[in-house]
Amino acid sequence: MNGDLTRLSLNQMTTKPWGVREAAAGCARAGIPWIGLWRDKVAEAGLKESARMIRDAGLKVSSLCRGGMFPAATESERAARIDDNRRAVDEAVVVGTDVLVLVCGAAPDRDIDAARRMVEEGIEQVLPYAQQAEVRLGIEPLHPAFAADRSVIPTLGEANDIVERLDSPQVGVVIDVYHVWWDPELYREIERSAGHILGFHVNDWLRGGGDPLTSRGMIGDGVIELRRMREAVDATGYSGPIEVEIFNEEVWAMPGDDALELIGERYLEHIL
Amino acid sequence: MNGDLTRLSLNQMTTKPWGVREAAAGCARAGIPWIGLWRDKVAEAGLKESARMIRDAGLKVSSLCRGGMFPAATESERAARIDDNRRAVDEAVVVGTDVLVLVCGAAPDRDIDAARRMVEEGIEQVLPYAQQAEVRLGIEPLHPAFAADRSVIPTLGEANDIVERLDSPQVGVVIDVYHVWWDPELYREIERSAGHILGFHVNDWLRGGGDPLTSRGMIGDGVIELRRMREAVDATGYSGPIEVEIFNEEVWAMPGDDALELIGERYLEHIL
Repeated sequence: MNGDLTRLSLNQMTTKPWGVREAAAGCARAGIPWIGLWRDKVAEAGLKESARMIRDAGLKVSSLCRGGMFPAATESERAARIDDNRRAVDEAVVVGTDVLVLVCGAAPDRDIDAARRMVEEGIEQVLPYAQQAEVRLGIEPLHPAFAADRSVIPTLGEANDIVERLDSPQVGVVIDVYHVWWDPELYREIERSAGHILGFHVNDWLRGGGDPLTSRGMIGDGVIELRRMREAVDATGYSGPIEVEIFNEEVWAMPGDDALELIGERYLEHIL
Repeated sequence: MNGDLTRLSLNQMTTKPWGVREAAAGCARAGIPWIGLWRDKVAEAGLKESARMIRDAGLKVSSLCRGGMFPAATESERAARIDDNRRAVDEAVVVGTDVLVLVCGAAPDRDIDAARRMVEEGIEQVLPYAQQAEVRLGIEPLHPAFAADRSVIPTLGEANDIVERLDSPQVGVVIDVYHVWWDPELYREIERSAGHILGFHVNDWLRGGGDPLTSRGMIGDGVIELRRMREAVDATGYSGPIEVEIFNEEVWAMPGDDALELIGERYLEHIL
């Protein structure tokens, strides 16, 4: 492919049918230098084995998904979540990335304010461990459509508030266009994220509705001002990888190599 | 039913299989004193005929849905939308309500800022006509899941900004719990809506995902802090009708009278 792919990363959920081995080989064939890994996929392939396959393919790891899921009904359950986040930190070290993406979790009941406090306390408790391991925690605000099931942090503003209160170089935000494109405060909040953006994820929002979990679109097929957002993120000083993360049945049904080729083209056309 | 239903309103989309005639009769049987009408249903039954049926059933009309849909690709198309909003104002007068609910519309392209300007200009252009007719325009912020298809006004904060800039007693907001419950700024923005809340809509947000258009839940089946929100809205001085608006295949499949009885029970248990 003609064009600069040096910042392009494949989040491996984009090629869901592939395991780590296939995704690593696919990236190498397509000239994609980065990969974003998921813990379940890494567990399937084996942690050390995954690290070896990534290294052998010559790839760098942009992030590991996901820690978080802090709110829970009981204290012991919350403690178990903290332990799991510490394990995620360890896994990030082994696979060779310093960014752990946090999907913060939903409320165990109707009390969304209490759940937000549990998220902040959870991050605070994982922080010393992450610091020691030199892994940074990236709070990824999730689209409000996921507020009941996946994250009570629905805006970049709310994520930035937590980052500012915790005031540690170890905590930042991961900005995914899908989750934040609709927000009237978006560009102000991107500016406010300057210096603590730990990742930038791209895909698209398609018109026509459907389940937001599996309706993410291929770059360029939807309504998001992708280049404007990329430029705003870069204007803060971010120059790290740009991860393509698409949850979409049609993309999953494509032969993986075809998906990667299309992603490369769309990345050059709409993002760069 | 034992309990105070004096503020309860049935938004007629909750009983989608019913026309205006059946909905009016159903409300009368259930002791629900208010009804919220939709223009397509009113057109089906006939405008004057609808007004007569509502009057004969002894009901008051809490609102007419919907005006809005201002953004469009061409000037002539935008002018046609303005005309349609004026017709909606006329219809509100005939059916006997002074509240026209605005679903503001999506961008015709990727430029969401431009679409927001078209929304504000559109409302401004309808305003003199609405003023003369003594109909108030209620901006209903819609959940960000609808930002690409139905409304570029995804937060109560954005709606309040428009209301403050237009600075007319003829413009206010309609707050639907489904659209705003996830917002960290919610209670601050409800306070800021004091004096210009033109309607309050209730239902619930269910866990488990699905298409947000048809996944609204029955009051009490989901995660929204319904009573807290009702109390916050009332604390601003709002004492108007509370409209039950549920888009849900299961509710639509229930016999209408059973749905209304359940709504009355859940309203008393979770809202009042």
